[in-house]
Parts: sequence; C-alpha cells; structure tokens
Amino acid sequence: MNQHVNQHVNLDDLPIRDDLRGRTPYGAPQIDVPIRLNTNENPYAPSPALVADLAEEVRASAAELNRYPDRDAEALRTELADYLGHGLTKDQVWAANGSNEVLQQILQAFGSHGRTALGFEPSYSMHPIITTGTSTEWISGVREPDFSLDPGKAAAAVEEHRPDIVFLTSPNNPTGTALPMETISRVLDVATGMVVVDEAYAEFARQGTPSALTLLPAHPRLIVTRTMSKAFAMAGTRLGYLAAHPAVIDALLLVRLPYHLSTLTQTAARVALRHRAELLGTVDKLRQERDDIVDWLRGKGLTVADSDANFVLFGRFPDRRKVWEALLESGVLIREVGPPEWLRVSIGTGEEMAAFRAALEGIL
Amino acid sequence: MNQHVNQHVNLDDLPIRDDLRGRTPYGAPQIDVPIRLNTNENPYAPSPALVADLAEEVRASAAELNRYPDRDAEALRTELADYLGHGLTKDQVWAANGSNEVLQQILQAFGSHGRTALGFEPSYSMHPIITTGTSTEWISGVREPDFSLDPGKAAAAVEEHRPDIVFLTSPNNPTGTALPMETISRVLDVATGMVVVDEAYAEFARQGTPSALTLLPAHPRLIVTRTMSKAFAMAGTRLGYLAAHPAVIDALLLVRLPYHLSTLTQTAARVALRHRAELLGTVDKLRQERDDIVDWLRGKGLTVADSDANFVLFGRFPDRRKVWEALLESGVLIREVGPPEWLRVSIGTGEEMAAFRAALEGIL
Repeated sequence: MNQHVNQHVNLDDLPIRDDLRGRTPYGAPQIDVPIRLNTNENPYAPSPALVADLAEEVRASAAELNRYPDRDAEALRTELADYLGHGLTKDQVWAANGSNEVLQQILQAFGSHGRTALGFEPSYSMHPIITTGTSTEWISGVREPDFSLDPGKAAAAVEEHRPDIVFLTSPNNPTGTALPMETISRVLDVATGMVVVDEAYAEFARQGTPSALTLLPAHPRLIVTRTMSKAFAMAGTRLGYLAAHPAVIDALLLVRLPYHLSTLTQTAARVALRHRAELLGTVDKLRQERDDIVDWLRGKGLTVADSDANFVLFGRFPDRRKVWEALLESGVLIREVGPPEWLRVSIGTGEEMAAFRAALEGIL
Repeated sequence: MNQHVNQHVNLDDLPIRDDLRGRTPYGAPQIDVPIRLNTNENPYAPSPALVADLAEEVRASAAELNRYPDRDAEALRTELADYLGHGLTKDQVWAANGSNEVLQQILQAFGSHGRTALGFEPSYSMHPIITTGTSTEWISGVREPDFSLDPGKAAAAVEEHRPDIVFLTSPNNPTGTALPMETISRVLDVATGMVVVDEAYAEFARQGTPSALTLLPAHPRLIVTRTMSKAFAMAGTRLGYLAAHPAVIDALLLVRLPYHLSTLTQTAARVALRHRAELLGTVDKLRQERDDIVDWLRGKGLTVADSDANFVLFGRFPDRRKVWEALLESGVLIREVGPPEWLRVSIGTGEEMAAFRAALEGIL
C-alpha cells in the first residue's frame, strides 16, 4: 500500500519550471509486439562469442567495482579515436551515456539562458528538447519541401540569427538523407558559434558520402557526434561520443558530471570496438534491405525520402494514424513521427521487412 | 600526430558560457598510490560469488544489447523501493547515473535560470556546481563553527531567501555529521520549494539516526537522495536514486534524457541489491574503524567532527597542504577539501587505517 497521505497532489501542484508545465515525457510508445521497427535499433543481436567476451571482461573489471571508474575514460577515448581514424587522438574525442548526454553537455558548455541554438526541422526531436532543457532558446530553421537543406538558405539563417550553436543532422532523422559537404562547409564559413554535426547514422550512409570528420582540421568550433546505438548494435549500452578540437573537450570537462561513465559502460564499449568487424558487418545487409524497401515503397506509388540511414520516411497519408494503427494490429510497430502525413519505418531483418511489406500491402 | 592546424586555439578562444570562464574541472586528483582514502569509496571489493553472478546476469541481458534498455527502469525501481522499505513503491523511486545525475535532474525540473537553490556550506561541493551548471542561482547558507546547523537559523534562512530548492545533507559531506530530524522538519515547515535531503552516506549513520524517508508521507515536496557508491560498495556502477512523492517522479520524467540508464547499469544494480547482505555487511566494520579513528585522532589532540559517514574531517592544520603532501609521500592519499585547516580521510580497511595512523603519527 502506498503510504502517502497526499494522494491528491499531482504534477501541477509542484513548483516545476514554468516552461515544463503541460509537457509530456519524451519517448516512443514501448509496446510489446512481434516486430519492432520504431526506434531505429539494429535488429541483429550480438553473437554468443561477443556476449561471452563481454561477460568475461565484466567479470574482470567488476573485481574493482567498489572503486570509481576512470573519470576521463582515457582507454575508451583512445580506442574510439582509433576507430574514427582521420588521425584523431583521444584528446579530440569525448564519450558519455548516449549521444543525448553528449548533446546535453555541449548545450551546458556553449548554451544556457540568454543563448540560442538553431536547427532545421524536421530533425532529431531531442535537439530542441535538450536545448530548452538547458534553458537555451531554440530557433527553428526550415527545410525545402523534399526535406533537403538549401546550402545558401542554411548559411543565411545562421547569418541572420547568429546562434551560439547550430545543429546539422547528417544523415537527418527522421527524414534519412545525408547532407552534402557543401552545406556543412557553408554553415561553418559563416557560423560564429559552435556547429554540431549529428552523425548518429553515419555508418549507414550511401557509398561516397563523406563524414564531417574530414572538416575537423580546419574548424575548431566543429563538433561531430556519433553513437554506438545504431550501426554498432549497442543501444542497450548507451554510449555516445564526439570528435572535436581538444579545446572543445576541455570545455566539456567543465560541465560533465564527475564519473559520468560507469566502469561497465566503458568496458562494454571497449568490447564492442574490439568486435567491430562483427557488429558493423550487419551494416551492408541493412543498407541493402533499406534500398530494397525504398524501391518497393516507390513501386507502390508512395513518396519516399532518400535514405542514408537505417530507417525510411514514407508517405503521404492524409490519416497517418490510421495506417500506423493498422500496421500495429498486424504486429508491426513503426513510428508516427516527423512531418504530418509521413511515417518512419526502421530497417529490420529480411524477415521483418517482409512482414512489414505484407502488412502494408494489405492496408494499401 | 595530431592533425589539427589550429594548434593555437585553446579553451579561452571558444564561445563557452561566460560563467564557466576560468573554471577548472571538478574532481579529486587521481593519483596511483597504495592507500587511497580520498573519495569515500568502500574499500571492500565485491566477492567472487557476486562478481560471478554479475557476469552471468550481464551475459543474459547482453543477448539483447542491440535493443534500448527499459526506459523507465521499472524492475530496478521496484527493487530499490523494496530495499528502502517505509512502504515505498516504484512510483516513488527514481534512479540515474550516480546521485550527481539525480541531483542534476532535480535542478533541471525545479531550478534553472531565475530560480535559486540554497545549501549550507561547507557541504557536498557538487551541490553548487550542479546548481550553477543548470543556470540556477546558488545561495550559500552558513553553519555553526562546529559545522552543525542550527534548526532555527536554517529555517530563518529558508524564510528569508524563499529558495526554489533547499539542500540538506545528512550525514553532511565533508564534515560527516547527520542532521537531527528537527532541523529537517523545521525547514520543511517553512519551505515553499523543494527540499532535497542528500543521504548518500545514510547507511553509515550512528545507531538511532532516523532517515528523512520517515518524513515522506507528510511532505510531497521532500526528496531523499541515495547512492550505491558508498555503503553498497558499487562506485564503479554509478547508480544514484531517490525517493519522493509520485508527482515528483512525474516531474523528473519531463527532463530525464530518454534511456539514460543502460541495460548493464540496471542489471548490475539489481545484482547488487540481491547481494546486499554481503555488500552492506561491510558497513558495521567501517563504522567501527571510523569510531576508532575518531577516538585516536582526538587522543592525539586533534579536533574531529562527529562522523555518521565513512569518512572523518579532522584538523586543524595552519598548513594543511603540507600535511596532505607528507601523507602522500608515505603512500597515503587523503582529501584536501572543505574548510581551510581541515582534512578529510575516508575509512578504509583495518590495514589501511593502521597505515594512515602510522603515517600521520610520523608527521605530527
């Protein structure tokens, strides 16, 4: 039995921040269905060999679990730098609990009250949430009707608003398309604040799509963020990271909570890096499934945004809720997110995508 | 080789928040010495049986590591509520990556720009850091010369400043003494905002010290925070938690980063709770060592604050840095923290405390 005598008290009675009033918690519905294609997870579970290695490494590191972790995660950052390549070293790499925490630390160091962050919507919905969560003002820039970002207009928006932080998302979520390097360069040319290129889905990009990592040498205010939740198939580990000039890492050290990254997280991420041939080996399969589903959807007469990610945005449905619900009734959970009339489906296994196609065919 | 052409860029050249300029990162020096008595860790490592159980549970949960964790950590919160007792249920419990993240979420929900938080210093130095890190204004209340908190003066400070958040730390860090229930009650009686009682060291309190958990039924704006880093000997796991009215948990859901708590963290914390007889079994030994070292220090003519924690504050040394350095030369690392002329020593094993006594004796 709940012991509280103040049963009548609810959220509205508490002195929460005024701008939080009326809000609801962020998050996709967690519904238990056979086929989950809603949060852009990688459908391939780690192999028994990887799991055994992880268990063994946890056994080894847990012997000192009474001690705080390496506060600066030096070994992990060294190995992340090695994975990223481009001549990066650990002084240019930082890691936290998911790219959400990475982004929050960036906002805490370079944003806050009286400062602004600009993003081009629709994009990753956590960007404005984390921005306002740190008392930074959010400025919403616009995209073209096909969700692309015109380089000239993007640069003009940065020049007009002079934001303290610009978010560029490449590949963009939930639309799926990567940015041409020209757009990033033109924004960097005019930005007076920090420029964050969110590359959570970079490993899935179509052949020949360069990473913003290539621009780091010339741009000390550029930050490129990544995650192990997608291509690395490690969503449960919650490991986000970034590459930037060493001075940026120095700035993040001023706002990071001490010992933010547990011993187990550091251990698991290092095991994943060691097994990256296996983990990233699923990327090609997922790309192929993605390209196939794009073709199939277009063949059905639907409109589909070009995808460099492990998901596809498709439409248009005057009543998208009805389509989403009908799919759910068939045991297929996708995401009702992004611009009205569009739906997003994550790329699953071949079997999962076949089930999605069969279910959608029945609905169309 | 570092590839950056902007080698001359440093932190001062970046557009960081003005109030961060000139600051240095928080954290005790991480020095590799034989005897570490500086960060209030529990010196007793988990048993091989616990470590084996943890490795096995990680093996089981890692099979789905490609999926996001339970976003709301329902099973863990249920088991934490069970551990805390007092009739608490999971709807009254919340968990995050260390009590630092718990505190930051509280500040994000109830603080931010234009709001204030009041604490009575010296106290846990992360309270003001996390407060200002969320753009909340910090108000420093005062303690008596013996570091105690006068109930009437504490209540008067709350009435005068009307802070949005009050921090009470019991047992207090770095001074070590628990608060009488009267002080907490009197603050609750006059507070118009949230009252956070930080009980990170509660399990070490001297016999008969009640927990602020007993006050929860009557106070929907009371939050009691705890951690697994100290008595639970799980500093490497980074698991902080709190108990409060269910409406407070609803508020935290508005600011928490989605999937903030990894699958591995949830797994490890649940294993620790299952093995709590072993883990908390070290508390009695540590209390005894603590009481012994208090007596010994006083026997040497030193001044020692009453301790309900796994550390002891002692002094006074006109040049405390000299004493700290001399101990370090003897291989004993303690903490130069808190009020000038005082030093803090964490309680280690019997052998470690003997080494500390021998080293300090040589210095005195």
